[in-house]
Amino acid sequence: MARRSDTKKRMVGAARQLIREHGYHSMALSDVVERSASPRGSVYYHFPQGKVQMAAEAAEVHTREQVDLITQLAGEAASPEGLVRAYVERAREGMLASDYGRGCTIAPLVLEVGGASEELGAASRRAFVLMVETLALQFVVLGADTADARELAHATVAGVEGAMVTSRALRSPEPFDAVRDTLVGRAQAFAAVRD
Amino acid sequence: MARRSDTKKRMVGAARQLIREHGYHSMALSDVVERSASPRGSVYYHFPQGKVQMAAEAAEVHTREQVDLITQLAGEAASPEGLVRAYVERAREGMLASDYGRGCTIAPLVLEVGGASEELGAASRRAFVLMVETLALQFVVLGADTADARELAHATVAGVEGAMVTSRALRSPEPFDAVRDTLVGRAQAFAAVRD
Repeated sequence: MARRSDTKKRMVGAARQLIREHGYHSMALSDVVERSASPRGSVYYHFPQGKVQMAAEAAEVHTREQVDLITQLAGEAASPEGLVRAYVERAREGMLASDYGRGCTIAPLVLEVGGASEELGAASRRAFVLMVETLALQFVVLGADTADARELAHATVAGVEGAMVTSRALRSPEPFDAVRDTLVGRAQAFAAVRD
Repeated sequence: MARRSDTKKRMVGAARQLIREHGYHSMALSDVVERSASPRGSVYYHFPQGKVQMAAEAAEVHTREQVDLITQLAGEAASPEGLVRAYVERAREGMLASDYGRGCTIAPLVLEVGGASEELGAASRRAFVLMVETLALQFVVLGADTADARELAHATVAGVEGAMVTSRALRSPEPFDAVRDTLVGRAQAFAAVRD
């Protein structure tokens, strides 16, 4: 049983990598099998609904990872500004570490599939709802007003999402730096009004 | 001759629509022919390099349109803040008008193809370089310092790009509102330091 669930986990991880590299449509099930070193027959054993199910589970792993990351960084931050800075920095590091080869897991599902799959539409929406809600909650815990926290959370998720596209195209970290400085400036302005 | 070039223009327009709706890989040449009401044989007549060439020309149309839009909005704006506000507003309107059905022309080329096509990589890079440079130039014309203008330009392009993903997934304009307010706040802070 343990081995079976290991195989499934490995396949979801491989699907996620492939989606981040070249999107959803170009992900072939044979690539997932190959990259995860899984037996061929395991695809329909673990994913009876095929590719859509695989992508939905990859999105779920991404969502949990992001919620955990935000919560962890918030625990180490002293202010909303500190959380914004650390969160953007983490995304920037990931982009540079992949040599501009890997983006977000969710964006390709939105741009390539969108409303055409109810399941992937729901998984994408759930991902962004939870990322925004978790950031907004943590900004409030760190002292922000509710409305400010919500603006900052939406702007942070959109800013990082956009920088993952433009930075990759430009092969430069400059978009991440600009997004970070803009968001940090906004968080500082909110704090100055509060104090 | 006029008719031939009309056909080509119509085909590039159709390719661009399809890319904005469901990305690059799911765009079939037969869909382009159908949507542009073109004769079947016209694909390889107008696009001897096929789909890659079609997408590169769609990216070029997008780039020229964005540069013209930024220049036009800058001509009507009284400050960097005014330009940011108008530019985000325009993207927000486009998203709502398409009922969250159409995103950016460039993002799918970056996420689905990336470095795998030299031609599409160059077209994507050129698009973001020109959008950022045009915004930065117009911010300076409207009174911003050079470094501030460059940060604001990168943050604006990334913020709008990201909001086009998250707003579409959430089926809500809230990401555009948050990005607009954050960028406007940053532009105002830059102006306050200058004055």
